[in-house]
Amino acid sequence: MRIALAQLNYHIGNFKANVEKVLTAIERAKSERADLVVFAELAITGYPPRDFLEFNEFIEMSEAAIKKIAEKSMGIGVIIGAPTKNLNLNGKRLRNSALFLNNGKIASIHNKGLLPTYDVFDEYRFFEPSGEFSLIEYKGVKIALTICEDIWNMDDQPMYDQSPMEILIKDKPEIMINISASPFDVDHHEDRLKILNENVSKYHLPIIYVNHIGAQTELIFDGGSMVMNAKGEIVKQLEFFKEDFQIWDSELANPKIKDQAPESLERIRQAIVIGIRDYFRKLGFKKTILGLSGGIDSALCAALAVEALGKENVTGILLPSEFSSDHSITDAKELAKNLGISAELIPIADSFSSFQKDLKPIFKDLPFGLAEENLQARIRGTLLMAISNKFGSILLNTSNKSEAAVGYGTLYGDMNGGLSIIGDLYKGQVYALSNHINLEKEIIPLNTIRKEPSAELRPDQKDSDSLPDYDVLDQILRLYIEQKQGRKDIISMGFDSKLVSKVLKLVNLNEYKRYQTAPVLRVSKKAFGMGRRMPIVARYLI
Amino acid sequence: MRIALAQLNYHIGNFKANVEKVLTAIERAKSERADLVVFAELAITGYPPRDFLEFNEFIEMSEAAIKKIAEKSMGIGVIIGAPTKNLNLNGKRLRNSALFLNNGKIASIHNKGLLPTYDVFDEYRFFEPSGEFSLIEYKGVKIALTICEDIWNMDDQPMYDQSPMEILIKDKPEIMINISASPFDVDHHEDRLKILNENVSKYHLPIIYVNHIGAQTELIFDGGSMVMNAKGEIVKQLEFFKEDFQIWDSELANPKIKDQAPESLERIRQAIVIGIRDYFRKLGFKKTILGLSGGIDSALCAALAVEALGKENVTGILLPSEFSSDHSITDAKELAKNLGISAELIPIADSFSSFQKDLKPIFKDLPFGLAEENLQARIRGTLLMAISNKFGSILLNTSNKSEAAVGYGTLYGDMNGGLSIIGDLYKGQVYALSNHINLEKEIIPLNTIRKEPSAELRPDQKDSDSLPDYDVLDQILRLYIEQKQGRKDIISMGFDSKLVSKVLKLVNLNEYKRYQTAPVLRVSKKAFGMGRRMPIVARYLI
Repeated sequence: MRIALAQLNYHIGNFKANVEKVLTAIERAKSERADLVVFAELAITGYPPRDFLEFNEFIEMSEAAIKKIAEKSMGIGVIIGAPTKNLNLNGKRLRNSALFLNNGKIASIHNKGLLPTYDVFDEYRFFEPSGEFSLIEYKGVKIALTICEDIWNMDDQPMYDQSPMEILIKDKPEIMINISASPFDVDHHEDRLKILNENVSKYHLPIIYVNHIGAQTELIFDGGSMVMNAKGEIVKQLEFFKEDFQIWDSELANPKIKDQAPESLERIRQAIVIGIRDYFRKLGFKKTILGLSGGIDSALCAALAVEALGKENVTGILLPSEFSSDHSITDAKELAKNLGISAELIPIADSFSSFQKDLKPIFKDLPFGLAEENLQARIRGTLLMAISNKFGSILLNTSNKSEAAVGYGTLYGDMNGGLSIIGDLYKGQVYALSNHINLEKEIIPLNTIRKEPSAELRPDQKDSDSLPDYDVLDQILRLYIEQKQGRKDIISMGFDSKLVSKVLKLVNLNEYKRYQTAPVLRVSKKAFGMGRRMPIVARYLI
Repeated sequence: MRIALAQLNYHIGNFKANVEKVLTAIERAKSERADLVVFAELAITGYPPRDFLEFNEFIEMSEAAIKKIAEKSMGIGVIIGAPTKNLNLNGKRLRNSALFLNNGKIASIHNKGLLPTYDVFDEYRFFEPSGEFSLIEYKGVKIALTICEDIWNMDDQPMYDQSPMEILIKDKPEIMINISASPFDVDHHEDRLKILNENVSKYHLPIIYVNHIGAQTELIFDGGSMVMNAKGEIVKQLEFFKEDFQIWDSELANPKIKDQAPESLERIRQAIVIGIRDYFRKLGFKKTILGLSGGIDSALCAALAVEALGKENVTGILLPSEFSSDHSITDAKELAKNLGISAELIPIADSFSSFQKDLKPIFKDLPFGLAEENLQARIRGTLLMAISNKFGSILLNTSNKSEAAVGYGTLYGDMNGGLSIIGDLYKGQVYALSNHINLEKEIIPLNTIRKEPSAELRPDQKDSDSLPDYDVLDQILRLYIEQKQGRKDIISMGFDSKLVSKVLKLVNLNEYKRYQTAPVLRVSKKAFGMGRRMPIVARYLI
C-alpha cells in the first residue's frame, strides 16, 4: 500500500485556506498513485481551535469543509482530523475525531480516547472521550488509527485508565497510523521517538505519524512526521519546520534513515523563526519594529526577526536616556549594520523631563525611584507603539523568561509588544542562542554579549544590583517553574535559603504582570502563558 | 442533629489564615452545641487554586492544614473540602475531596464525581473523577455528601454519564449536604435554587448547601449558603456577600423563610464591591487611583471603588487634552466632590507636544490619525502608572465590556490597570448600574449620564462615529459572546447584515488586545478572561 504523509501548516478557523491545502495534497497523492493520504489531528480547524469549538457555526463550517474534501476522495482514501458531533446524548457535545474518507463520503469515524487536559491542553473542555475503537479495513490492509495522546499512555502510572491500542491490537491490525497535533518543545522530538519506539516494540507493527507544522500564536509545531518500522527504525521522515509531503510504500524495502532533527539550539532558533513568521503572516502583517537597547535581549530578537521577516521588514528604534551608556548606542548601531536593518534614534530626555514637570505638583520633592525608572520604560513603550500604529507594524516584545519570572520589567513599558519571542528562554539560553547565531559570523556584536546586563534606568545600574547571578537564578527558576520543586527541596539542593525564598516569592508576586503580557512563543515544556495558569491574589510562598 | 453552616472568605494558598478561620468556626460550632459543622469545597486551599495544585509542597501544606483542623474535631464532626492524593496509580494524581473529620482524625474521604471543565473551570486538569460514592453515618443519621457539580447533572442531555446522588440514594440517606465553590454571575442564584429544588424534589430529602464568599481575582463568590427542606422551601439562608455562620437543627420546626437575595442590579453592585475589596486586601493594598474623564465609565468605577475601599483611599486624576470638552473637567470635579475623594489635575498637552516633536523626524508630515489618538491615551496611562508606582496604589481599569469586545480602547493606555472592575458590564449595564447607584441621591453627575459618550481623542469625536448605537451593539455582542450564536443566526433575528459582520469581525480581531488586559471581575455567565479562551491568530468570521 502506498501511503502519503501530508504535513501542512494550517490556520485556525481559516477553512477556505485549509481546504485548499488539503485538496492540493490529495491531488498530488492521486497523481503519485497513493492509496491513502494522511493529514494531522484537527487539520481542518487548525490546532488548537479553543473556544471556537463552542460555536455551532464553527462546527457547521468544519462539517462543510469535510464534505468538500470527502467529495475528492474518489479513488483514494483520506484520513483527516476534525471535530464531530457526539452522537450520544450524554457527555460533551463534540468528539475529537479522525475521519476516514473514501468514495466521496465519510467511510468511518474514529474518536480520540485520551484527551490531554494539562499544560497547554484543554481537550476535555470540549470533547467527550471515546471508549470504543475499531480498525479501518482498506484494500485488504487492517489499520489501527489513533489520535495523538491515544498512544501516549505507556507509563507505569498511566494518566488514563484505558489504552486505545490495547483494544485495537486484539483485531490484529497490520499498520498503526497516529495523527497528531504535538506542540514543539526543545525535547519533544526525543519524547516522540521514545513513545513511537515503545509502541512499535510493544505491538510489533510499523507506525505512521503525521503532525502539524507551523505556529498558532504561542504554540509551535515542528512537523517531524515519519514512518517508523516495527524494529523502531525511522524509514521515512518529513522535514522539520517546513511543509512536506512524502509517500511510504509498504511493499518496498524502506531502509533505515538517519534522524534529520536539528540539534537543540538550532531547533529553538528555527522554532522561534517560524513562530514569528506565522504570527505575522496569519495576522496579515509584514513589518515589525523593536527597541534596540544595545543589550543582548533586543539584539537576539532583532536577529531572529530578520530571519523570520527579512531585513527590509525590521526597523530598530534606539531610545537612549540620560542614563544610557555610550555603548548602548554604538552596540545597537553596530547590530543594525550587521543585520542590514534601518535604525532610528529618538532620545527620550525631553519627554522624560516633560513628564517629570507634569508630575512635580504631585510628586513634590520625593526622591527619584522606581516610579521614575518605570516612567522611562513607559516612554519608550509609548514611542514604540506610536511608530507601530503609524506604520502598521507589530512591536516585538523582547523580555526573556528569567526577567519575566521575577518581574524585572515594566508593565506597559518594555513589556509591550504583540508577541514575546524569547519569553521562554532563560537568560543563559539567550546567551547560548546568541553565540549559536554568531557561529558563522558576528551578527550580534561581541560587546553586546560580553558586557554586564543593565536596564540603564538609573546611574550605573546593573541587573546584578537587584537580581542574583543569572546562572544561579536560572537554575532556581527551572527547578521551580519546570520541575515544580518546593522551596525546601530547592534549598536542600544547596542553594541559599534566603535567595530561594526571595526568588520564589518574586515569581508568585509577579503573576499580575505576566497576566497582562503578550503571548510567549513556547519552546520549553513549561512556558508562561496558556500552559501555566496561576491565581493572582494567592498568597503562597509569599 | 444540629448542623452549623460556615460560610467563609478564604484566600488561595494562605493556609495559615484559612486554618485560623476554620478553627474559629469550629470553636463557635462547639460552643453552640452543633453536632456537625460544614465548610465549602476546597475551603482549605481557596478556590480555584489552579496550577498550584501541581506543586507537591502545596499539597503537603494543605495536608498539614487538614491535620491541624482534624485535631480540633474531638466531639464534633467537620466536613471540609480539600485536595487529596488519588490512591489509584491510574489517572490524575489528585482528587477533589470532601473530608469528614471526627474524633481527631479523617474519618472518611468523599471524592467528587463530576468535574466541571468548561468556562472558568479546569477541574479535570488536576483531578481524577470518582465513580464511587458512599454515605456518612454519623450519630445515627445517614448523610449523602456531594461536592458542587455532583448535583448539577439533571438535564435531559446530561454533561456526565453518571450521577452521584443516583448511587447514594440507594443507601437511603436522610439528609443531603453539598459543599460548593460556585462562582457568582448575575443569574447564578436562580440557577442554584432551581438545581437544589430539582434535587430535593427528586430525592425527597432536605439539602444543606455551603458556598464560598469573597473574590479571588476575577471570580466572585456570593455565599447564599442555605438549607432547603424536602418541599423545596428555604428554611435557613446565610447572608449574601458576607461571611456568615448559622445553625440548622433538624429536630426543630424550621418554617419557610423569604429568599434574601438582592435584586439583580444590587447584586452586581455588591459583587463588584467585594471583588474590588478582596483584590486589594488579598494583595495587601489599600489605595487606588483612577483617571476621571468626566465620562460614565470612570464615574461608575470611582463610585464603586469608594464603596469598596473608602473615599480616603480613592484618588481621581483628571488628564485633559486639547480635545477635552469643558464638561469633561466640570463633570469629573463634580463627581469627586459628590464622592468626597481627592482629585488632581494634570493637563497632557505638554507631554503630547513633546512626543509629537520626538516623533516628527519619523512621522514627517503624515496626517493626525489613530497613532496620535492612541498616544494621548498612552500618555494618560503612563501618568497614572507613575502616580500609582510612586504612592503604592493600584490603578483601576475602567473599560466596559462593549468597548473591550470591539477593541475600542488603547492597549497600554486607557486599558491599563490592575483589575478591570466593570469589564463584564455592557455599556447599557453601565448606565443601568449608574442610575441604580444614583437612586437615593445624585452621586454620578446627571450630565455624565446624559451626555453623548466620547473618547475625546480628536476634535468633536463621538463613540457613535466608530461604533453602532450601544443598544444595538450590546444586543449583537450578547448574542455572539454569551449565546454563541452564529453570524447567520444573528442576522436572521433582524440585525443589519453588514453591521453584524463588522461587529463579529471586530470581536475576533481584537483578541490580541484582550489577551494583554487586566483580569475582569466576572458578573455574567461569559466574561472575558479565564472563562473565554480564544486563539489570537485565528481567521474566523474575519
